[in-house]
Amino acid sequence: MSTELLRTLDLVDHHCHGVVTSRLDRAGLEDLLTESDAPAPQGTTFFDTQLGFAVRRECAPVLGLPEFADPHEYVERRAELGPAEVNRRLLRAAGIGTYVVETGHRSDEILTPAQMGAVTSAGHAEVVRLEVLAEQAAADVDPVDFPAAFRAALDAALVTAVGVKTIAAYRGGLELDASRPTDEQVVAAAHAWTSEAEGEPLRLTDPVLLRFGWWEAVDRQVPIQVHVGYGDPDVDLHRCNPLLMTEFLRRTQGSGARFALLHCYPYHREAGYLAHVFPHVYCDVGLAVNFTGAQSPQVIAESLELTPFHKALFSSDAFGAAELFHLGALLFRRGLAQGLTRWGEQGGWPLDEQMRVAQLIGSGNARRLYGLDVAQPRPHEEGS
Amino acid sequence: MSTELLRTLDLVDHHCHGVVTSRLDRAGLEDLLTESDAPAPQGTTFFDTQLGFAVRRECAPVLGLPEFADPHEYVERRAELGPAEVNRRLLRAAGIGTYVVETGHRSDEILTPAQMGAVTSAGHAEVVRLEVLAEQAAADVDPVDFPAAFRAALDAALVTAVGVKTIAAYRGGLELDASRPTDEQVVAAAHAWTSEAEGEPLRLTDPVLLRFGWWEAVDRQVPIQVHVGYGDPDVDLHRCNPLLMTEFLRRTQGSGARFALLHCYPYHREAGYLAHVFPHVYCDVGLAVNFTGAQSPQVIAESLELTPFHKALFSSDAFGAAELFHLGALLFRRGLAQGLTRWGEQGGWPLDEQMRVAQLIGSGNARRLYGLDVAQPRPHEEGS
Amino acid sequence: MSTELLRTLDLVDHHCHGVVTSRLDRAGLEDLLTESDAPAPQGTTFFDTQLGFAVRRECAPVLGLPEFADPHEYVERRAELGPAEVNRRLLRAAGIGTYVVETGHRSDEILTPAQMGAVTSAGHAEVVRLEVLAEQAAADVDPVDFPAAFRAALDAALVTAVGVKTIAAYRGGLELDASRPTDEQVVAAAHAWTSEAEGEPLRLTDPVLLRFGWWEAVDRQVPIQVHVGYGDPDVDLHRCNPLLMTEFLRRTQGSGARFALLHCYPYHREAGYLAHVFPHVYCDVGLAVNFTGAQSPQVIAESLELTPFHKALFSSDAFGAAELFHLGALLFRRGLAQGLTRWGEQGGWPLDEQMRVAQLIGSGNARRLYGLDVAQPRPHEEGS
Repeated sequence: MSTELLRTLDLVDHHCHGVVTSRLDRAGLEDLLTESDAPAPQGTTFFDTQLGFAVRRECAPVLGLPEFADPHEYVERRAELGPAEVNRRLLRAAGIGTYVVETGHRSDEILTPAQMGAVTSAGHAEVVRLEVLAEQAAADVDPVDFPAAFRAALDAALVTAVGVKTIAAYRGGLELDASRPTDEQVVAAAHAWTSEAEGEPLRLTDPVLLRFGWWEAVDRQVPIQVHVGYGDPDVDLHRCNPLLMTEFLRRTQGSGARFALLHCYPYHREAGYLAHVFPHVYCDVGLAVNFTGAQSPQVIAESLELTPFHKALFSSDAFGAAELFHLGALLFRRGLAQGLTRWGEQGGWPLDEQMRVAQLIGSGNARRLYGLDVAQPRPHEEGS
Repeated sequence: MSTELLRTLDLVDHHCHGVVTSRLDRAGLEDLLTESDAPAPQGTTFFDTQLGFAVRRECAPVLGLPEFADPHEYVERRAELGPAEVNRRLLRAAGIGTYVVETGHRSDEILTPAQMGAVTSAGHAEVVRLEVLAEQAAADVDPVDFPAAFRAALDAALVTAVGVKTIAAYRGGLELDASRPTDEQVVAAAHAWTSEAEGEPLRLTDPVLLRFGWWEAVDRQVPIQVHVGYGDPDVDLHRCNPLLMTEFLRRTQGSGARFALLHCYPYHREAGYLAHVFPHVYCDVGLAVNFTGAQSPQVIAESLELTPFHKALFSSDAFGAAELFHLGALLFRRGLAQGLTRWGEQGGWPLDEQMRVAQLIGSGNARRLYGLDVAQPRPHEEGS
Repeated sequence: MSTELLRTLDLVDHHCHGVVTSRLDRAGLEDLLTESDAPAPQGTTFFDTQLGFAVRRECAPVLGLPEFADPHEYVERRAELGPAEVNRRLLRAAGIGTYVVETGHRSDEILTPAQMGAVTSAGHAEVVRLEVLAEQAAADVDPVDFPAAFRAALDAALVTAVGVKTIAAYRGGLELDASRPTDEQVVAAAHAWTSEAEGEPLRLTDPVLLRFGWWEAVDRQVPIQVHVGYGDPDVDLHRCNPLLMTEFLRRTQGSGARFALLHCYPYHREAGYLAHVFPHVYCDVGLAVNFTGAQSPQVIAESLELTPFHKALFSSDAFGAAELFHLGALLFRRGLAQGLTRWGEQGGWPLDEQMRVAQLIGSGNARRLYGLDVAQPRPHEEGS
């Protein structure tokens, strides 16, 4: 199994965001290449990271620069080409066949799912964020009407969206009471929440309302993406261990809902365990592949210890910078190829079985999970 | 150090269960190849896992099929040969010299330790489960007599058994109060437990009684196997971190009891730490070797970071399917050989020292821990 | 990138202790080669560990013995040469350019920072332990004067010391309330502490006083070394996860203080996350490199997944045995070279960039963090 063989592997990026269309200066680009919310300390740069090195090595040539161009040249060249051309080049280089775009984060700064599809001639689908729906519903109606308003908003979103996402990990962590709250509890919590906000934008952190969102999504039997593990400094990472959801997963087994655990680093082995023992749990190491760069083959291999091959997913978790799509796809292909090659050599896996596993993880599992072949015409595939 | 060199390495499988003797259909076999309690989702199979691939690659030829036979053929061939022949072939292929069999799980469906020894011409010994002894004692006597009944049952079991096992991990987790309960507390807890059961089979989850079992075993200065980490969806995996036992291990240092932490994944580094700092703690990565398949060399190597070479153990944790014995032994030999080879090349370990380490881990440590050479005549060795 | 190329890499050992000058018998040496506080069980030896094998392979030749000399010969040869010559040979072999020596542990048995510098002709600097300063201040003054006495002691220490260290991990763990205690709270806690001591040596475990020490150090904007993760059996390892400090790190961002997370194993990925998202957090895998020996390249590589290359540090965490300096430096160079080589081959990192990363981690980051070039004349460099 060579990386070459996986160059044309069909990829469904089951969790990503849009790219920005604005011009990025050095600080703006660095900000998109880190999960930190602060600039690198004086005298240092986020280019001196696994991700930064991967950008210089792999993205520079796509923009017409020599490999490992220095950061200054790279930013200049980006400006010279302009954002549209940079996005076009890097997204096309990524070779992703379908984007499943989550639209709940800074959505006014980035391309919509349809625009992503148009730029890339790729298929596209949308995932909506539960907490955003809740914040909008709570802003619009009286607390007593919040349950109905949220349900209506969710139903409306799911007319087109193929799934939902929760960022409860960022809003207090994943250790929520696994029971379903009553509507009375939800109304009381909505009342407390909105009355405390005093005119500030609503930010959902109430555990009753977070659980309400989870259970409403479960009722609709849709894929539920869950932010797990690594993210920006807003998270208390030790509260984002997916094992904290064990009881909730136990109770929703057989409900028809399915869970896609996102990123998961450094809890990807724990996520693999959950994907192994629960039939409705899937997982990826999306974000971690980009951020661990040349070291990502190990992370990918670890994520495939317990995860059944019919449960592992590919995602870039790219946001904003088109580099993250290209690298997400490239590093995933490379790391997966490396693991498969080793398991082929040491474990005797035949090449056709290696390829079948790659196809499951690259696209097959996501198509099955999100019902993409049924629900989504994907023009780029009709033509191929 | 080649895998070849380890092909004849004497192995004591210090923690396993018996094989089933009934005929297994596809669903029955898949059920034994996963820790999930549900079938694989529609359109998928547990053969698409690290373990499933290892079965197809390594077990198929033992049954006279080509490597990587497809699952359908594999199950058919199994039926054709019949369970006795399948068990005979795979167990002999495993080349395990001594089985230390734990008899506390579905023991009416599987071979006894003596039967395992007879089928394989190998040595055998028994380990008894503390929670089963407690459940039997509580069913038999009045709560006020429970402490004495449990003690008597334990003493009786230890006439022949070489150690005990606890599955407290499955009964609420490992974070038990480290203090020894009084008999009054034990009687009260037994009373509450049995009166709440209302005729249902007794299932021990009371922390006082779990601790009572631990301390009684400590008093008898025997090896105490502890289920740690990965297992079926009954466990709350985050409550099975062996570090939660730290205070208990601290208090029992010097007691004469010894602890063998089983499986430990994904907490095998934590287990290695405990084995390093506490003189009475041993560990293995049993179950994880089978379930991580071609990726197991990394898990084995990680388990040997802090674990002293005189504290690491081999086990298959096989239950039911004879495949798990063959693969447990094969993957352990292969993974250990790979680690030793790398450490030889990069760290300059001479071949004789590599072999000595392999012998300690493969059998020497277990013989010392369980007193096997003293307590157990092992006929298969007398003949060799 | 060959290990050869890194042989002359300048190293700042940013966290170590002095070597002992007394003669070590077999038991004394083994005690320094383990984090256990008990001898190896009868019939076993701590030489049968990753560290023990590294000593036999790498240190034996430095003492004029063949590689992999047996432990008995090794201890004899050590005695023959005498401690001064053993220390001289192994420390010189280490090739460390600057020692940042922490003096808070058994400081009467080991060389001072200045003596370490003299033996090795290397630069040296001192780090003081907050808990020792607190214990001394509390022993000297009335509780009501404790805050002032501690502040004065800290100020006095920082006239020469380049930073502080906290071992709160050993004194209850890292999950301290992140808020700054008031002086009233501190006085009350000091009162309770000293009055309970009843003439016994004071040992600081009070969380209010531990937090007080942290905040006083933050106010002085100095590097604060934090014991994280693996250590001796005194620690409750699950209370030493650096993520437990997240809120404290969040509150001190922008304060001017910087944190160096030490050792971190098995939480080095978690530490890398913190170093990635917080601009004032650095980390190393010091102790773990020595103790994981031939397996340390994997640990080093994992620590460089998320840690920016401008935040990773080198340390040996050596205490007492000169072997730990030689091996700490050797294994670090070897493991880093191996990671860089792989990332060069698979990720296309040019050799000059590999070397620049090695220089940052080996010495550049520590010089910047501790202000070594400004504050510390380093005679060994003037001469080179």
